[in-house]
Amino acid sequence: MKPVHALVAAALLLGFGPPAAAYDGPVDKRPFTIPDFRFQAGARLPVTLGYETYGKLNAAKDNAILVCHYFGGTSHAAGKYTPEDRRAGYWDALIGSKGAIDTDRFFVISVDIPANINLDPTVIATGPQTLDPKTKKPYGGTFPAVSIRDMVETQRILMDQLGIQRWHAVMGTSLGGMQAMQWAVSYPERVARVMTAAAPGRSDAYNQAMSQVMIEAIQADKNFRGGNYYGQEPPNQGLSAAWKLMYAKILNRDELTAQFPGAVGHPAPPFVMELDAQATKRVSRIDANAWATISRASRDFDLGIGHPSYEAALGRVKAKALVLAMVGDELFSPERLEKDLVAPLKKAGKQVEFRVMDTRQGHLGAVFELNKEAPAIREFLEK
Amino acid sequence: MKPVHALVAAALLLGFGPPAAAYDGPVDKRPFTIPDFRFQAGARLPVTLGYETYGKLNAAKDNAILVCHYFGGTSHAAGKYTPEDRRAGYWDALIGSKGAIDTDRFFVISVDIPANINLDPTVIATGPQTLDPKTKKPYGGTFPAVSIRDMVETQRILMDQLGIQRWHAVMGTSLGGMQAMQWAVSYPERVARVMTAAAPGRSDAYNQAMSQVMIEAIQADKNFRGGNYYGQEPPNQGLSAAWKLMYAKILNRDELTAQFPGAVGHPAPPFVMELDAQATKRVSRIDANAWATISRASRDFDLGIGHPSYEAALGRVKAKALVLAMVGDELFSPERLEKDLVAPLKKAGKQVEFRVMDTRQGHLGAVFELNKEAPAIREFLEK
Repeated sequence: MKPVHALVAAALLLGFGPPAAAYDGPVDKRPFTIPDFRFQAGARLPVTLGYETYGKLNAAKDNAILVCHYFGGTSHAAGKYTPEDRRAGYWDALIGSKGAIDTDRFFVISVDIPANINLDPTVIATGPQTLDPKTKKPYGGTFPAVSIRDMVETQRILMDQLGIQRWHAVMGTSLGGMQAMQWAVSYPERVARVMTAAAPGRSDAYNQAMSQVMIEAIQADKNFRGGNYYGQEPPNQGLSAAWKLMYAKILNRDELTAQFPGAVGHPAPPFVMELDAQATKRVSRIDANAWATISRASRDFDLGIGHPSYEAALGRVKAKALVLAMVGDELFSPERLEKDLVAPLKKAGKQVEFRVMDTRQGHLGAVFELNKEAPAIREFLEK
Repeated sequence: MKPVHALVAAALLLGFGPPAAAYDGPVDKRPFTIPDFRFQAGARLPVTLGYETYGKLNAAKDNAILVCHYFGGTSHAAGKYTPEDRRAGYWDALIGSKGAIDTDRFFVISVDIPANINLDPTVIATGPQTLDPKTKKPYGGTFPAVSIRDMVETQRILMDQLGIQRWHAVMGTSLGGMQAMQWAVSYPERVARVMTAAAPGRSDAYNQAMSQVMIEAIQADKNFRGGNYYGQEPPNQGLSAAWKLMYAKILNRDELTAQFPGAVGHPAPPFVMELDAQATKRVSRIDANAWATISRASRDFDLGIGHPSYEAALGRVKAKALVLAMVGDELFSPERLEKDLVAPLKKAGKQVEFRVMDTRQGHLGAVFELNKEAPAIREFLEK
């Protein structure tokens, strides 16, 4: 029985679809600090985030593309830090010389989001585990809620620091696509093109419930202690439940069923044991508070917030849009994206292209297989 | 905005589809005890369960129909205990004089399952909250795992006590349908007809994961204490997360999205607040250990257990089968039931009728709207 992670690993190693790009320029992470960032929730605190760039910003500063990262992702979108790195950035097949996002021509930038979930030395992101300069203790349970708009706002401040007036494009997968659409709504004059993959314009009730369950599983954990668990045992049992819920949902259910057809197994069905093995490896590299914070950002995402209506918000968009949906995506099905994002954009007279990508990876296809859409993405960036 | 529970309530109050039956005979719960029940997991302990009957067992004892209850259900399938009862049993529209399951002709029996989840004075079911006669304390974390086969075995013992040789039919919704199929496989000579609604022949990987998440959310809870929480604060935060996961999944997602289109709301999106209000009411009437126990039974359900293969198990069936699927069922879609239950039954040469019921209630349609299939069910019972 071929485990699902092997399928994902195969996709990572072999690639799929058209010949892949591979960014071979130098990659490093740079920090930038916003000394007094004001969150939508009202709190103000210093925020430091890491960012990576690929390619060169031209003199006119009009060749910049922002790539926003997904829930479990980081700003490491392409390339390797050292030749010995086992994996390149997650969109390395798309980003590079002559790639769909051609770094001979474009300057690509990606930024860690506040409260990035990863306990990873290459990630720079102020979050619940960061020391509060006032108390010299981790923020923990006092860290503010983070919204998709907050993520966009941190990126807007970096954009201003870099002197970029308008993005050639803003793009992203899943939570990254939410940020991209938020950009197009919040700053219509500053976004020429928006590309989203496997991302909606607002969180639907079902996904809100899934986010809420993840948050509550973490908060219920005996080790949660109101979020102030740093230096002690972390709430990893609740986090493990949350991780398993997410993991099962981002796979293609038909593929999953084909690989794990039944429940015969001891002490538990094979997929349950597989889930457990995967969770054990992954959860130790995730901060539970951050996971809950980003789950809430996803739960509460709605482009209509701050506007008379969802439709009115979409009416603000000036960017050309490319909306990609994944076959078998349990979170954001092609039908739903067509109905709730593409149709209202069209109705508002916007220029939008909708493509449904065939993939065996469900939601994850937008992370690992998006190179299948390389020709369409390349063409979109030329329009 | 019309809340989802109002839709369900409307279904309960008004009924849908053909004119409904209503069982008007006397209803009471009787206990029966198995002094030394041996669970599949190996443990032996006394088990007492409640059962209800509707109609009369004939002299030949060949008119008996067993109705197995669903995850959140009880043996209260029809009728009212007193005329003042607000609600009748959940299949009251099906069971009654001249109903799809005609109590003028059939003797219908329904049995509480071991570890029934409900803290409800009308339920009689040995479970984790029951006092262990040896220690005089609740079993708590020592209560054994309960399998679908265990549920069937308790019903088989009652059947023998009542002197019934062969069921005219065994039927059930969801977890009840799992029991019905298990009957047809475990005791092919004793089941003339089997009807399942919104139930598979084995738990698929996705549903296994959902069950596992529910179990872990409960076990992670600070109040869980290894399952030995009776007399103290129960692990209701973890249980609430589990309940919300189940609740969101048994609704029709399209209906849910139509009713709660977005996330605009304070302090949380409207559906999240609605979920919370519903959970607060419901969770206080559920035992968390029992919920985890039945989640595990569902997670580990596979007709192939104890047989050379899943297909070989289905090959044992001698009953005529009626398989009902619900449009928009997120747990067990019509496509999946067709592929994984109906097709292999047909391939094994079994007599099986497959019907897809149109409903706005998703999985819940099989509980609250099944009277839409009354003519088909009535005809099936005559075959």
